[in-house]
Amino acid sequence: MSQLIRIGIVGYGNLGRGVETAIQHNPDMSLVGVFSRRPPEQLVTLNEQTKVFAMDDLKSFQDKIDVLILCGGSKDDLPQQTPALAALFNTVDSFDTHARIPEFYASVDAAAAPAKKTALISVGWDPGLFSLNRLYAEAVLPDGETYTFWGKGLSQGHSDAIRRVEGVKAGVQYTLPSAKAMGAVRTGTRPTLSTRDKHTRECYVVLQAGADAAVVEQTIKTMPNYFDEYDTTVHFIDEETLAREHQRMPHGGFVIRSGNTCPEHNQVIEYGLQLDDNPGFTSSVLVAYARAAYRMNQQGQYGAKTVFDVAPGLLSMKSPEQLRKEML
Amino acid sequence: MSQLIRIGIVGYGNLGRGVETAIQHNPDMSLVGVFSRRPPEQLVTLNEQTKVFAMDDLKSFQDKIDVLILCGGSKDDLPQQTPALAALFNTVDSFDTHARIPEFYASVDAAAAPAKKTALISVGWDPGLFSLNRLYAEAVLPDGETYTFWGKGLSQGHSDAIRRVEGVKAGVQYTLPSAKAMGAVRTGTRPTLSTRDKHTRECYVVLQAGADAAVVEQTIKTMPNYFDEYDTTVHFIDEETLAREHQRMPHGGFVIRSGNTCPEHNQVIEYGLQLDDNPGFTSSVLVAYARAAYRMNQQGQYGAKTVFDVAPGLLSMKSPEQLRKEML
Repeated sequence: MSQLIRIGIVGYGNLGRGVETAIQHNPDMSLVGVFSRRPPEQLVTLNEQTKVFAMDDLKSFQDKIDVLILCGGSKDDLPQQTPALAALFNTVDSFDTHARIPEFYASVDAAAAPAKKTALISVGWDPGLFSLNRLYAEAVLPDGETYTFWGKGLSQGHSDAIRRVEGVKAGVQYTLPSAKAMGAVRTGTRPTLSTRDKHTRECYVVLQAGADAAVVEQTIKTMPNYFDEYDTTVHFIDEETLAREHQRMPHGGFVIRSGNTCPEHNQVIEYGLQLDDNPGFTSSVLVAYARAAYRMNQQGQYGAKTVFDVAPGLLSMKSPEQLRKEML
Repeated sequence: MSQLIRIGIVGYGNLGRGVETAIQHNPDMSLVGVFSRRPPEQLVTLNEQTKVFAMDDLKSFQDKIDVLILCGGSKDDLPQQTPALAALFNTVDSFDTHARIPEFYASVDAAAAPAKKTALISVGWDPGLFSLNRLYAEAVLPDGETYTFWGKGLSQGHSDAIRRVEGVKAGVQYTLPSAKAMGAVRTGTRPTLSTRDKHTRECYVVLQAGADAAVVEQTIKTMPNYFDEYDTTVHFIDEETLAREHQRMPHGGFVIRSGNTCPEHNQVIEYGLQLDDNPGFTSSVLVAYARAAYRMNQQGQYGAKTVFDVAPGLLSMKSPEQLRKEML
């Protein structure tokens, strides 16, 4: 290992904390510090040795940081932050509003390319690793159909919805891939399935004292848009169980392509993630791609890039020789 | 689509036939012809419009072929063929003797690089797509363990072994991933497992008239090296069933990485293939990588390359804009 890749973290929510933790598993990197809009003295980091700086100080770090990992949100932070910072630093972000990726790409590229910086956008698992698997599978089996299933995953929006139901004290909602739909896809018969057909919903609810369980269950199951058209299960639990078993942020899902190389031969490619902690995993993906961003910049690959542009070997701590010998 | 990528096939076994078929699913490619050591007039192609040429004519095709797909075997053909042809053409091959990849790489690189040709070696699913998944998963979860399972797959060597048992008229053997071992890996507990622990063996046997089934079963199950240390099942079937249900060459398997982003959070990444036809699928992978070899050569990326060097977007018929919009 010649020289450590120097990383800066912008934003310190779940994702920023995940990056802080993930860097410890990557001995070719060093963490310069966390940059936050909060006053540095008020921000308590997971690792007490992590330095904290004000966002306004960032500009003076241009020759002290190789890659900035942007951990803000896709709605309010990244659309402004990534173009602004990609003109000054190599960056990696997890912009995940699928429909707005083309315009986001254009604005980031316009900032990064003339500055000779490399900006890897929309990194994570979806967009990210799932996108890669959609691409690989389609390239290998052009005659086929790709299915994406999500879950088991905690859904914030649906959890909020059940907590608004009268008689509900607390609760969480998980989205699950439908076992029946997954089974149909795996047979290679290419069924036609809507998002609704592909998923079921599972609710864990703590009732308020005196609430009628049957009424609550009925209200949830018939809630328009959220639950009425899904196969929904409601479990009633006590507060201790909720605290003990439902505090994690699990997620994951599957990308399955079913295709044919000739009419008689079905070929099925399946990729799946089963994550105990969604932000922790996304952070780990961001960190691996920070290594690639650094290397691509050194190779002169400037401008906005996506996971589709990154040769896989650039993600690894291992040398090309080692990869060919040990992993091919 | 500006200009078709012109493909030549060298060798016409299962793999060569698979490439001939796969090219029909890739409208940006055209098949120039098949080159074989057999006399062209004796070679009957799947598609009667496919042209057949003698190997000796290949040299005169240097300006008529963009990429040669080498469909010979790893033992006797490719170690000589790839270096010889990579000095004249861009090539893709499926060299799969894992232990010899470094020396093979060196000999191909020495031929291709000075000739400004691009030679993609060891393409297929293992080495190939499985290797990619080992790399991606390790890069994303440095703290973890990767497990490769093979099957359900027809094993030629083990099928030959059961056919040599006295009283056996015909038979086939499948290697299967052990459900128990897969289950243990999926829990995220990182069990220690040997190849033996990870697989079971299933035999379908047609008995000769008068043979004793119990004796045959016992002989197979206790055969040293092949079966004695595996969990082996023997099914007796008649010749019609063998002909009807066991003529395919299925294969597949799983690459599973179980890792942690922090001690409390297990994260499991799983990639699986379920293939009705092993050579047909491998051929389809070769064809997708032929597109990448052509593009990399146009970009000036010369010499021997592996799947680790290929940016995923280069495999797709779609433009970078389309990929970002539709697949990210």
